[in-house]
Amino acid sequence: MNLPFDARKLDALMEKEGADLLLASSKDNVAYLLGGYRFFFFEFKDAIGVSRYLPLLGYRRGAPEKAFYLGNSMEHWQQEWEPLWVPEVANAHWHSEKAAKDAAGRIRKLGLGKGTIAVEKGFLPADAYTTLQEELPDARLVEGQAILEELRAVKRPGELALLKKASSAIIECMVKVMTTTPAGATTLDIAEQVRKEEVQRGLNFEYCLTSAGPGWNRAPSKKARWERGRSLSLDSGGNLHGYLGDLARMAVLGKPTPLMKDLLAEVEAVQMAARSAVRPGATGAAIFEKALAEQAKCPHKDELVFAAHGMGIIQHEAPRLTSAGVVPYPGPYENRPLEAGMVLSIETDLKNREVGFLKLEDTVVVTPSGWEAYGDGARGWTVGEG
Amino acid sequence: MNLPFDARKLDALMEKEGADLLLASSKDNVAYLLGGYRFFFFEFKDAIGVSRYLPLLGYRRGAPEKAFYLGNSMEHWQQEWEPLWVPEVANAHWHSEKAAKDAAGRIRKLGLGKGTIAVEKGFLPADAYTTLQEELPDARLVEGQAILEELRAVKRPGELALLKKASSAIIECMVKVMTTTPAGATTLDIAEQVRKEEVQRGLNFEYCLTSAGPGWNRAPSKKARWERGRSLSLDSGGNLHGYLGDLARMAVLGKPTPLMKDLLAEVEAVQMAARSAVRPGATGAAIFEKALAEQAKCPHKDELVFAAHGMGIIQHEAPRLTSAGVVPYPGPYENRPLEAGMVLSIETDLKNREVGFLKLEDTVVVTPSGWEAYGDGARGWTVGEG
Repeated sequence: MNLPFDARKLDALMEKEGADLLLASSKDNVAYLLGGYRFFFFEFKDAIGVSRYLPLLGYRRGAPEKAFYLGNSMEHWQQEWEPLWVPEVANAHWHSEKAAKDAAGRIRKLGLGKGTIAVEKGFLPADAYTTLQEELPDARLVEGQAILEELRAVKRPGELALLKKASSAIIECMVKVMTTTPAGATTLDIAEQVRKEEVQRGLNFEYCLTSAGPGWNRAPSKKARWERGRSLSLDSGGNLHGYLGDLARMAVLGKPTPLMKDLLAEVEAVQMAARSAVRPGATGAAIFEKALAEQAKCPHKDELVFAAHGMGIIQHEAPRLTSAGVVPYPGPYENRPLEAGMVLSIETDLKNREVGFLKLEDTVVVTPSGWEAYGDGARGWTVGEG
Repeated sequence: MNLPFDARKLDALMEKEGADLLLASSKDNVAYLLGGYRFFFFEFKDAIGVSRYLPLLGYRRGAPEKAFYLGNSMEHWQQEWEPLWVPEVANAHWHSEKAAKDAAGRIRKLGLGKGTIAVEKGFLPADAYTTLQEELPDARLVEGQAILEELRAVKRPGELALLKKASSAIIECMVKVMTTTPAGATTLDIAEQVRKEEVQRGLNFEYCLTSAGPGWNRAPSKKARWERGRSLSLDSGGNLHGYLGDLARMAVLGKPTPLMKDLLAEVEAVQMAARSAVRPGATGAAIFEKALAEQAKCPHKDELVFAAHGMGIIQHEAPRLTSAGVVPYPGPYENRPLEAGMVLSIETDLKNREVGFLKLEDTVVVTPSGWEAYGDGARGWTVGEG
């Protein structure tokens, strides 16, 4: 059977957790297991009628030929064009409880009524979860999040190609907006313009953190304006077929001041130091050591904050590189060796009272010989004409 | 206290269900209760790190001054620009389980450890739900979906204004795409063009069902093309600040044939018959009676399917007009009188072997004197130049 993911790895991860069956229910993980298939009608929302869209993919450990997929009643249209590898498909549901009841019946038929079922507890709604509990009273429902994110941690060439394309497109959009925005535009207008540029390039826009100096507030607003002589920080994420471009760049309306140049050079130095540690076999701890050592040398070291984490489909995903990030991950990840095909988001910000909020965020891929940065342009001050 | 929703109605609905506290957790309902506030960073996705975004709004029946809101740690930025009415706000969470634990503590402090808590079982993840169960072992967790959708059933003037604007924009986009698409374009390209046009007009694109005759498949695909002489059905939803425009229109590349004209006239007749029944005090059953009587007179009556349902924030929401719709609603809704401010989606489709899939979908608002249709243009065959 030709599967779009590494079934051997999945089987091993499931075995380690003692899981007999994986029941994926988040749109991202279902899409991953289906090789990129996302039902277009519910790509942006879930709610419908008195319930919601809830795709359920059941994978029996070691037996992809027994996998099942439960979708919405309209999905057969898309599957006519894009057939699924899953042998058993029922596009039949408008209610999460009924989908769960259907899944439970199939799990029983597989002889797993007393089995261990890995579910996504953060992405399985309460009504579906309690239905599984009621219908499978002797089964054990365990957390499948770690299995799934570990399965996704090393990206395949096709995934890397999408990430690269998405990253380049994000930078193009930012430069276009930075160089064409008139003085006095609101940060809400600027973020909206970034959204439009991303969609024009085929991305699905996710967010644009937007901060105009000297303020530090990063929420786009019609109350904040980018004025002549001031800095602008853009940090935007947009995905291409589910794969995220997420980068941050700086602009100034007019010429950057000497202080602006110095500050961004410090951010840049920390970013480059972090990058220099990236290669197969290196650890997250090594990346942090390099970055923090560089930070310690910076004149504005107390204004700097460094972070790094895995990314890909989700903004923060495996590999974790530290336990002390913005998003706390209590995992044993710091000392785990990086592998080629892992994708890192490396970010340094600086909050300065005079200039405002500065940030560079880069996407750095672990390659067999070291690293490659995607969308690596426009890392200095992009000069807006206003 | 100046609340953005009808607190008296909410209190009455909660009392009817015996709910002491409402804990909203879906992005749509949280936004509704917060007067349109949606945290921009997670507007399009939920997943982050090892968990997900989970906003929680707690509303104690009859006591808005005791309401609380639990958000993500970055939300304070947006709330600086858009202060919330909620007195107690904690922007503190990166994990759904921790957010639920925090909510449980606040519920206990309100003296409701043994109370009845209405939650959104389709939009509260399993981990948050089991945390509530563990932290509030003596509380009763009941379904709050019906309370919330009933609260939203009659739209306020500001909501209607957004729905009207969104509806008109959808029609503009469709006409633009229908009249500028070259012959032989794929339905995927066409849907993508609709997306771009919607985003250019400030909408959040949701979906575009796209069918090129003579086929009936409505999923956009690079395998299906709109050829000269053929029909095109577009059915697209896009929201403006959360309020949905959702309409369906027809085009033909070249002149419509006599059969095409006849078929669309039948669809139109059923649509208009349905509309004629809409006014305050009328029932859903009355709308269906009118439409089905008209359908019975049509030469192609066996190819026609009529449906009607409430809409607004969600594609199918209260008021329900039948128990037998595409999305089954086992409610006692058929005989419930319509009220001014309710918003209906009225839709008729026709599947013909020669022409393909035809559909008109209209947004019809109940007004004090009858009805008004939003985005009511381009209801005949829009002629594409190819």
